[in-house]
Amino acid sequence: MPHVVADIGEAGVIARVREAVSRAWPNAPHVRIGLGDDAAVLEMDGACAVATDSLVEGVHFRREWVSAQAVGSKLAARNFADIVAMGARPRALLLALAMPADTTLEWLDGFINGVVAETMRAGAVLVGGDTSVAPFVMASATAIGDACGTSVTRAGARAGDVVAVSGLCGAAASGLALLSAGLSEPASAIAAYGSPRPDYSLALRAADTANSMIDCSDGLVNDLGHIARASGCDLRLRAAAIPRSDAAVQAASVLGRTSDEWVLTGGEDHIFLATFPRAAQVPEGFTVIGDAVPGPGQVWIDDQVWAGVAGYQHFADTPRT
Amino acid sequence: MPHVVADIGEAGVIARVREAVSRAWPNAPHVRIGLGDDAAVLEMDGACAVATDSLVEGVHFRREWVSAQAVGSKLAARNFADIVAMGARPRALLLALAMPADTTLEWLDGFINGVVAETMRAGAVLVGGDTSVAPFVMASATAIGDACGTSVTRAGARAGDVVAVSGLCGAAASGLALLSAGLSEPASAIAAYGSPRPDYSLALRAADTANSMIDCSDGLVNDLGHIARASGCDLRLRAAAIPRSDAAVQAASVLGRTSDEWVLTGGEDHIFLATFPRAAQVPEGFTVIGDAVPGPGQVWIDDQVWAGVAGYQHFADTPRT
Repeated sequence: MPHVVADIGEAGVIARVREAVSRAWPNAPHVRIGLGDDAAVLEMDGACAVATDSLVEGVHFRREWVSAQAVGSKLAARNFADIVAMGARPRALLLALAMPADTTLEWLDGFINGVVAETMRAGAVLVGGDTSVAPFVMASATAIGDACGTSVTRAGARAGDVVAVSGLCGAAASGLALLSAGLSEPASAIAAYGSPRPDYSLALRAADTANSMIDCSDGLVNDLGHIARASGCDLRLRAAAIPRSDAAVQAASVLGRTSDEWVLTGGEDHIFLATFPRAAQVPEGFTVIGDAVPGPGQVWIDDQVWAGVAGYQHFADTPRT
Repeated sequence: MPHVVADIGEAGVIARVREAVSRAWPNAPHVRIGLGDDAAVLEMDGACAVATDSLVEGVHFRREWVSAQAVGSKLAARNFADIVAMGARPRALLLALAMPADTTLEWLDGFINGVVAETMRAGAVLVGGDTSVAPFVMASATAIGDACGTSVTRAGARAGDVVAVSGLCGAAASGLALLSAGLSEPASAIAAYGSPRPDYSLALRAADTANSMIDCSDGLVNDLGHIARASGCDLRLRAAAIPRSDAAVQAASVLGRTSDEWVLTGGEDHIFLATFPRAAQVPEGFTVIGDAVPGPGQVWIDDQVWAGVAGYQHFADTPRT
């Protein structure tokens, strides 16, 4: 019985991905040519949105902290969150997976299943990939979406807009803090970190009326800072209005600290931040947390300009796991 | 003076890429939204071709063997070769780069310049990316092409087609053999391995008349095997007709061996293999090396079925560098 990828070789790995894809998408919509040729070919009328994002073992995850399925699912989720944050509909995913030769087939299958399940949940298809050997796992993915409507950028916020968020803040960062402390409860915080489930439809509904939108991956204040700078206006938040994740509150209690930092600067929640011309245009599921006002591109928390800790910076900070 | 990427952080790395992109493409064709938002948005009428490919340090390259510029250039070339092999026009590239915090800015700039230069040569634009820290360099890229015409697949060869190759065989593998032996001459072999320059226009011209085509990255016989199996016919090659690279012949002489294995099974030449309905339809620049005949999907060298060494297999073989 083969146990590790060295037993089945590159061709065996590719065959396993192809089988999983055939099972998941016996008829793939909008795919003219799928896996197995030099490139995949997708129907695409008007415009496409494309984004790439990676997960590196020891930097973004540890295999002893999160399941293979969670790593695969999170990789796909990060990419599709970027696509819907532009108002584009997810269509396809490409996967580049490097891993050690002693990676177990159980881990590989879990990872593939995670990628496939989240890609299906996003309404897209896995159409291509590349695999190679490496000393540890590094997985990159590229998501492609149909952007035939108007794209919603980071640069569209206008003074007078209301600022809103599509979910609860701080859960993912609280899960990471628990894992770093050697804990695995509360489970909701761990799951928020390990397997984010972006609400793709909610982001697409928001895109109909939003002036600007961003996937919240670097932390609330940091990502709103991207909108503020790109749009050339200030965003003034009411701290008390920011919806705080119950999981983060529970995790804070377990760890004997407050959840404030996770809520304001914790990354990887993969909820959506957007500005809308009027409060009446904010879709159900979003919570208004402030307003856009004239200014040079700063974020305010109540009556103070935010000058606190930024999100995680690769190279300058130590790995986050 | 900053010397390594840890000195400039993730934001500094991204800023360097953005500067290089602004210099290279002050006005990027077909790009509605480029670097700097959640996703890039490209005009795409009808269909797009997408492919992904990676280079892993210690597996696909060694930093002491090839320059940073060559690594970047080769990464882009591998991806665009896959796009034109489908008959699609290169439009965009996305880059995921993981590297150690002590990577020098000189290496980073060389790598970016290599990616940008080859992307320009392919007629495309660098529109997005992702960067993170890792214990060694791993770079993945995804190329996107305009596939609004008919796509040329691996599955279109028909008995009666002529088989042709767009360049000289064996140069890249001979360069790798020289480097593995501690040599750095002849320079043409080293360059073929380090910085392949696929003839994108020639592949696109071939796509007008070819029944099937593939980027030759896994070795001549291996890649023709992909066409034979996908098409359900045999390909019968005339060994004497296969154009042998002068660089490979010189390298063989230096190393005191023959170049046969490099010519037949050496990878990474990034020339194009195609079948055409008639010899008169083979474009200038291609050399006819055989015919497609009825059969179960085998490759013949003269009167023998090829049953020799396949190309490099990740996981099953040791790293190729």
